[in-house]
Amino acid sequence: MERLLDKINSPADLKQLPEGDLERLCDELREKIIDECSEHPGHFGASLGVVELTVALHYVFDTPRDNLIWDVGHQAYAHKILTGRRDTFHTNRQYNGISGFPRRDESEYDSFGTGHSSTSISAALGMAVAAKMDGEDNRLSVAVIGDGSMTGGLAFEGLNNAGINNANLLVILNDNNMAIDPNVGGMNEYLLDIATSRAYNKIKEEVWHVLGRVNKISPGARNFIQKIDNSIKSLVMKQGNLFEALGLRYFGPVDGHDVVHLVKVLRDLKAIKGPKLLHCLTVKGKGFKQAEIDQTVWHAPGKFNKDTGEILHDERSNTPPRYQDVFGYTLLDLARANPKIVGITPAMPTGCSLNIMMREMPGRCFDVGIAEQHAVTFSAGMAARGYIPFCNIYSTFMQRAYDQVIHDVALQRLHVVFCLDRGGLVGADGPTHHGAFDLAYFRGVPNLTIAAPLDESELRNMMYTAQLPGQGPFSIRYPRGNGTTVDWRTPCVALEVGKGRRLVAGDEVAILSIGTIGGEALKAVRRCPAGSVALYDMRFLKPLDEELLHEVFRRFTRVMTVEEGTVVGGLGSAVLEFMSDHGYSAAVTRAGIPDRFVGHGTREQLLRECRLDADALYRRLCDLIVRR
Amino acid sequence: MERLLDKINSPADLKQLPEGDLERLCDELREKIIDECSEHPGHFGASLGVVELTVALHYVFDTPRDNLIWDVGHQAYAHKILTGRRDTFHTNRQYNGISGFPRRDESEYDSFGTGHSSTSISAALGMAVAAKMDGEDNRLSVAVIGDGSMTGGLAFEGLNNAGINNANLLVILNDNNMAIDPNVGGMNEYLLDIATSRAYNKIKEEVWHVLGRVNKISPGARNFIQKIDNSIKSLVMKQGNLFEALGLRYFGPVDGHDVVHLVKVLRDLKAIKGPKLLHCLTVKGKGFKQAEIDQTVWHAPGKFNKDTGEILHDERSNTPPRYQDVFGYTLLDLARANPKIVGITPAMPTGCSLNIMMREMPGRCFDVGIAEQHAVTFSAGMAARGYIPFCNIYSTFMQRAYDQVIHDVALQRLHVVFCLDRGGLVGADGPTHHGAFDLAYFRGVPNLTIAAPLDESELRNMMYTAQLPGQGPFSIRYPRGNGTTVDWRTPCVALEVGKGRRLVAGDEVAILSIGTIGGEALKAVRRCPAGSVALYDMRFLKPLDEELLHEVFRRFTRVMTVEEGTVVGGLGSAVLEFMSDHGYSAAVTRAGIPDRFVGHGTREQLLRECRLDADALYRRLCDLIVRR
Repeated sequence: MERLLDKINSPADLKQLPEGDLERLCDELREKIIDECSEHPGHFGASLGVVELTVALHYVFDTPRDNLIWDVGHQAYAHKILTGRRDTFHTNRQYNGISGFPRRDESEYDSFGTGHSSTSISAALGMAVAAKMDGEDNRLSVAVIGDGSMTGGLAFEGLNNAGINNANLLVILNDNNMAIDPNVGGMNEYLLDIATSRAYNKIKEEVWHVLGRVNKISPGARNFIQKIDNSIKSLVMKQGNLFEALGLRYFGPVDGHDVVHLVKVLRDLKAIKGPKLLHCLTVKGKGFKQAEIDQTVWHAPGKFNKDTGEILHDERSNTPPRYQDVFGYTLLDLARANPKIVGITPAMPTGCSLNIMMREMPGRCFDVGIAEQHAVTFSAGMAARGYIPFCNIYSTFMQRAYDQVIHDVALQRLHVVFCLDRGGLVGADGPTHHGAFDLAYFRGVPNLTIAAPLDESELRNMMYTAQLPGQGPFSIRYPRGNGTTVDWRTPCVALEVGKGRRLVAGDEVAILSIGTIGGEALKAVRRCPAGSVALYDMRFLKPLDEELLHEVFRRFTRVMTVEEGTVVGGLGSAVLEFMSDHGYSAAVTRAGIPDRFVGHGTREQLLRECRLDADALYRRLCDLIVRR
Repeated sequence: MERLLDKINSPADLKQLPEGDLERLCDELREKIIDECSEHPGHFGASLGVVELTVALHYVFDTPRDNLIWDVGHQAYAHKILTGRRDTFHTNRQYNGISGFPRRDESEYDSFGTGHSSTSISAALGMAVAAKMDGEDNRLSVAVIGDGSMTGGLAFEGLNNAGINNANLLVILNDNNMAIDPNVGGMNEYLLDIATSRAYNKIKEEVWHVLGRVNKISPGARNFIQKIDNSIKSLVMKQGNLFEALGLRYFGPVDGHDVVHLVKVLRDLKAIKGPKLLHCLTVKGKGFKQAEIDQTVWHAPGKFNKDTGEILHDERSNTPPRYQDVFGYTLLDLARANPKIVGITPAMPTGCSLNIMMREMPGRCFDVGIAEQHAVTFSAGMAARGYIPFCNIYSTFMQRAYDQVIHDVALQRLHVVFCLDRGGLVGADGPTHHGAFDLAYFRGVPNLTIAAPLDESELRNMMYTAQLPGQGPFSIRYPRGNGTTVDWRTPCVALEVGKGRRLVAGDEVAILSIGTIGGEALKAVRRCPAGSVALYDMRFLKPLDEELLHEVFRRFTRVMTVEEGTVVGGLGSAVLEFMSDHGYSAAVTRAGIPDRFVGHGTREQLLRECRLDADALYRRLCDLIVRR
């Protein structure tokens, strides 16, 4: 039988289908997503969970005139397939292929680019207010946001502001009780209460019903009831719901997998102007059994066998560990020895491997939800009471907590250890997720020690050093993915803070590198004539190893700095500042991420594009060696 | 009569007073604050509003063992006076005097330093969790937070997390319906509802009462009522309150000016473990009539006559305007001509002077509450629909929205104009509030134009330029306080983006400056031998004027960069990067804010300390001129 999906090149085609065909279309969409993701890894579970919702939204609303914003964007695959990207979807997340997230420059149906969580309500409200100012009262702006994203402060700020703007905004709360890991927090428990308690769902009718009946039965109570009638009304109808308390009309909860009912509900909502929220219950991974059961694993499972549900792991034995696991096991080791250590993550226990410590020491680990700002200030509070929080936040998400690092930690010299996971180029997630800026934006923060390890054992040593008495605010950044050392579980050694080391001796050119990108530099150096290129691993961006730099600039007039971060303001600039302050002159080549947003692709492809791979570094070294 | 206050050197002394004396003590405290603030300007209204609360907290709780955190900290004056700083309070906010905010290094009673809003719940929760882990169940952590601060996303993140941690946390919601300007947002309206509706305050009892009575009167309704009994109970007791929905026990509202009752309530709360919130109604400026009436003006009124209530304005006529007013009037001019311009502020309409446009065009101005992240993403949403938001955020608060600038605006090249008020040293507010980092942290953001005007008419020109068609993400930073030009209302002229200008010609040394600190540089240059020092106003930090820099580095071997921002990663570093990239060598002196947190004092004192005033710049120039 011909697929319905093959005839749908845009939502206009979708709108031609009779309602009776929508379920079948959902099945086809789901099958397409499963097919594609089994071959081309991507964010799997989230998109399966919103197939019906996606179909219903495009069926009922007039996209792209009505603005549709997918919070985070992991769940936008069905949306992409329905909006002209069915036949390019196999290029999802690949170099020069379509993005794994909505992007304004990819499709007019992607009203607003996403990637980081909790932005959709604010953006949709901005669009809704714009429509109102344009006199387009019937143009709707829709934010689809998960219950996990709802824990982010930005989402609350948006809701709080939406409640007083009478703009045509629809927030769809896609409640699957999950972030990547199970969702946590007071609001999550509240949503569970709503969703699971029949009482709540029926309370509105029942209160009126009973009061009506009592009223009839017992005229003597009439006055009394009259008196509290309005009170109960305002309580139940307005203050009885968290969202209504904030000024949004609340509808739901509804079954997010009943597409026909969703179509009906959305049609009804079309007629209701102003800010409103539809609470929609969905199952992450819906329709693929294993994904429904183990939702965290199937958030982004990599390649899998779609028939057996087996995830296809890399079969090589003796592979070096992921940096994430080095972090996780090392933290557990350190925590066993130092009772003051606690672990803190904003909703990434699995992603950052804090779950390793969590399993053994649940009472000393805190998943605070998608709430980077809170993660940092909460850490500061614990540090003020003598604990040593290891606060693990992805580099790109640390941008959300920049003020808290400055204002709550660095200014007060509190002993918080920031572990910046996914520093540098992250690969397929692309520009929203590259950890390109942290070295530069942290370098300006007073009192902050900034370290980045060359390899796994250095990561261990830095973590060990960071928790020693006498340290203050301390940041360690390391990349996504696998390291280089199979036998990484070396004993931890204290490093001298602010001291680098020479890895390779040489006479003509010196490389100053920081972080794991030093591994690429090392490969490049090894291709150069022996003894020509010296390689220094700075280890610390702040404080800089001035003794080492004096030595380098006394001996070398050709220097290359290498960092996996923006060339604007990072290590290269620090070295230039040092040179200027001490009157050195040398030809300095700064290798780093260029001053533009880098797209998605494999890490290797992107390193090549940024001229940070060993080949490119080698070519740049050759230029320097020739130039005398 | 001897003052009670004179005998109180710590909360231990306070605890000796009989309850009957507390009101008198409150009067004395209030008088002290009025006396001191009339002479030594400070944050006036907030502290008057919490006199009773402060006395009650220290009277009932065991500070500093119990941790007391004042959100923002404007309201901590009574706290400071009661905790050993009565006799130094006259040095408040002065150079080398006590800080206007709580500081951990100033007193053990300042459990956590504050300044920026909405941090207190997260920090107090961190402390409460630490106490729990230490087995100190009876150690309480108290966050006192205003309803204005409660609109910040961080506060919500903290509340959401508090609800699931069974730690001994007390949040006191100091509800005065104000931030600096009147508070806005759905939560504010909700709090107003609670506070003003007698219905709400009585609903719990009444529902039970009526149901009880009905029950007696009409046995026929018994079953029905029984059936919904639990539903209503869970609704009213749990979901009926926004805070209880998030998992905190809610108490209140109570009169925050009845000190004896507050003492009783706090004693009761002492017995209740776990996370809880006390909703306390206060009046900002309480006890000083004018301050109660015009709360925004009296937030921080400057010097005033405490008898007449007259604010003592600077009497000089023909003073140059504040940059804030230049912003305000210029934006209004631009908005009159360009219907796509809108104004956005996170709770600072008076502080940043957006209120000027607001008065004439209320529909085109948006005060989104203390919510910097939302302000930026909301702006991005409006820009995505064709509007040109002028989003005004203080430099120090822009640290809160760094991710949104990168992820929502710059990555999508949306045409949002950021106006960074209070760039550079802000004076008496001190280290939490200096705009020291923005030039450096913005410089690494791709696609962002970064400008800073030398003077008022340049600010106008930059604002004019920023809103022209074809521009993208655009930032303009300018300082707090008065400019230099009396006749500043010059016609707006389009500037070429990325082009600086030469202000003074010279042969020996070149100064490259950005922003209003160029005025100090100009004074310094004028003291040098005529023709010796050239002064260039860069105007744009990004893109850099490379043509100008080529000219400078071809002609000069001695260069000084001048910026009112950290020397780490700002203009100086940009110039060094340019030199390195183009093979120039020159002796470069980078004048800027040093890489440490600068304290409080007058702007003049702090500029001197940072060697950024004309005197210091002159001395540094002399060094350069001598050194050939």
